[in-house]
Amino acid sequence: MRDCDYLALTMTIETAFIDALRTFCDSDAARGLNDDVATLGDLVISHDMIVEGVHFLTDDPPEDVAWKLAAVNLSDLAAKGAVPVAAIMGAGLARDPGWNEGFAKGMGQACATFGLPLIGGDTVVMPAAAPITMGMTIMGRPQGRIPHRGGALAGDAVYVAGVIGDAGLGLALLKAGHRLGQNQDYDPLIAAYRRPVPMLETGRALAPIVNAMMDVSDGLLIDAKRMAEASGMGITLNLDAVPLSKSALSYWAGQGEGDQRSIRLNAATAGDDYALLFTATRPLPPAPGKITRIGTIQREPGLRITDSQGEVPLPDALGWLHR
Amino acid sequence: MRDCDYLALTMTIETAFIDALRTFCDSDAARGLNDDVATLGDLVISHDMIVEGVHFLTDDPPEDVAWKLAAVNLSDLAAKGAVPVAAIMGAGLARDPGWNEGFAKGMGQACATFGLPLIGGDTVVMPAAAPITMGMTIMGRPQGRIPHRGGALAGDAVYVAGVIGDAGLGLALLKAGHRLGQNQDYDPLIAAYRRPVPMLETGRALAPIVNAMMDVSDGLLIDAKRMAEASGMGITLNLDAVPLSKSALSYWAGQGEGDQRSIRLNAATAGDDYALLFTATRPLPPAPGKITRIGTIQREPGLRITDSQGEVPLPDALGWLHR
Repeated sequence: MRDCDYLALTMTIETAFIDALRTFCDSDAARGLNDDVATLGDLVISHDMIVEGVHFLTDDPPEDVAWKLAAVNLSDLAAKGAVPVAAIMGAGLARDPGWNEGFAKGMGQACATFGLPLIGGDTVVMPAAAPITMGMTIMGRPQGRIPHRGGALAGDAVYVAGVIGDAGLGLALLKAGHRLGQNQDYDPLIAAYRRPVPMLETGRALAPIVNAMMDVSDGLLIDAKRMAEASGMGITLNLDAVPLSKSALSYWAGQGEGDQRSIRLNAATAGDDYALLFTATRPLPPAPGKITRIGTIQREPGLRITDSQGEVPLPDALGWLHR
Repeated sequence: MRDCDYLALTMTIETAFIDALRTFCDSDAARGLNDDVATLGDLVISHDMIVEGVHFLTDDPPEDVAWKLAAVNLSDLAAKGAVPVAAIMGAGLARDPGWNEGFAKGMGQACATFGLPLIGGDTVVMPAAAPITMGMTIMGRPQGRIPHRGGALAGDAVYVAGVIGDAGLGLALLKAGHRLGQNQDYDPLIAAYRRPVPMLETGRALAPIVNAMMDVSDGLLIDAKRMAEASGMGITLNLDAVPLSKSALSYWAGQGEGDQRSIRLNAATAGDDYALLFTATRPLPPAPGKITRIGTIQREPGLRITDSQGEVPLPDALGWLHR
């Protein structure tokens, strides 16, 4: 199966399933099952899974897998401007006790780093040859209003906080056999894939003034399209503005790749960024991290991309292939 | 690998992992990571996973798998006397859209039956040949005090609400090739395996007066031992008193099995009962469901079993083999 066929298959399956759930998940707390979080009293709550071979590589260090599980969940809180309150974990464990021990150690590091109390969960040893499968439910306390991904208004400026594409390059490097420490120019890219950093403070600073906010997990293009659709709007992105890191630019220079359109399309469809995507009508407050305007919301539905050469045809796959 | 070696392997792995988590999961909310729930503000919260080939069979109907996921989570609330508030699901889906559709339908039935709002979650299509893996985090509102599994006092009477062993017989029948509707005497046993009913009302009625309470998920003997250990106590069970259903008795009569010790040891190690195990000093209030006194808590640590023939040697495996 080609990668983009696989993407289409899984997206079709997941979308059909979520549509089936929507027939009975109709409480306000569910936020239409199209936001990053649900609400629970005065808290927000979210759940993200990571599966071996889908969201992480079999030879990723277990400490990093644990960090990633915490980080992808914390990123959902960041997108709602919420402070971490607690987490519960469902751990589908390895049969190798050493792997599990490393995972527990990495989870301890992540929880200490982000002030996240892990308060309970469930464990099961996965059957032989089955992928390690981890889930986490995270609760956070919003600091006032909770931005919805579907809140964008016509005329809003669209921004990204953070950089796009590093994790995708890190994944590509690992799949090509590169190892951490082998080339220090590449290490930040591998770290971006294995140890994403949730933008909690940035999200908290922005939440009071944004109209829509979400984290970029599956790829900038697909997530931008989802934001526009959830808002009943369309979105135009300026591909040239998509923020790349110095490490990414140095990687592409080293590859002899000079086609800016191709470089930025790669970044904008790579996924696993855990940057924040948001829209605002008003001027932005000071917020930590690199913030870049990348587009505009308009009434006409759809995703449009332009760059200095003109209109950019939409790529077949707008997001991460999870492969 | 023999079943009891497999049990020993998975229990060793899970225990080592939980011990590693305990080094940093030290908030009061975590309740020492040895209760069925954690606390979250004025709520209790729990997470249970079910994995294909471990907790359910590949040819169990997907509607029933969904019901079971909800029921095993609701059973944790029952053990704390809590009313369901909301659930979040992590769905590691099948590649067969029909299976997923059935699962969503069954989840809708369970949520409607038990008044459980499903408010969010995450979906991932599991890799080819990987087991379907589902997790649920459930939140409930306790009605006053929250019984801990570690609250048993010396001299307490030990009780079971519900019956023991039906689900284990249902699983054995299914593994032997029996099908629902093939022999109507067996249907309630198969239903007990596939569609356990959480004892929510019973748990709520009992919570104000019990000293310790937990649900029986892995097997009566192992769960009784865990309750005693968490309480710093020992426990003596009267095997003859272990409550069996009419269907179970009829099953054993049909098998020509008359050895009561063997029948009741089978039930008490089968697991998947989702009965309530509790201890009390005071007389019990009226509560729905069959309630049976099965033993006594004492100061000397350890699990002891007696029956009309005298002391019963502990079986090699005290609980469900998950196989």
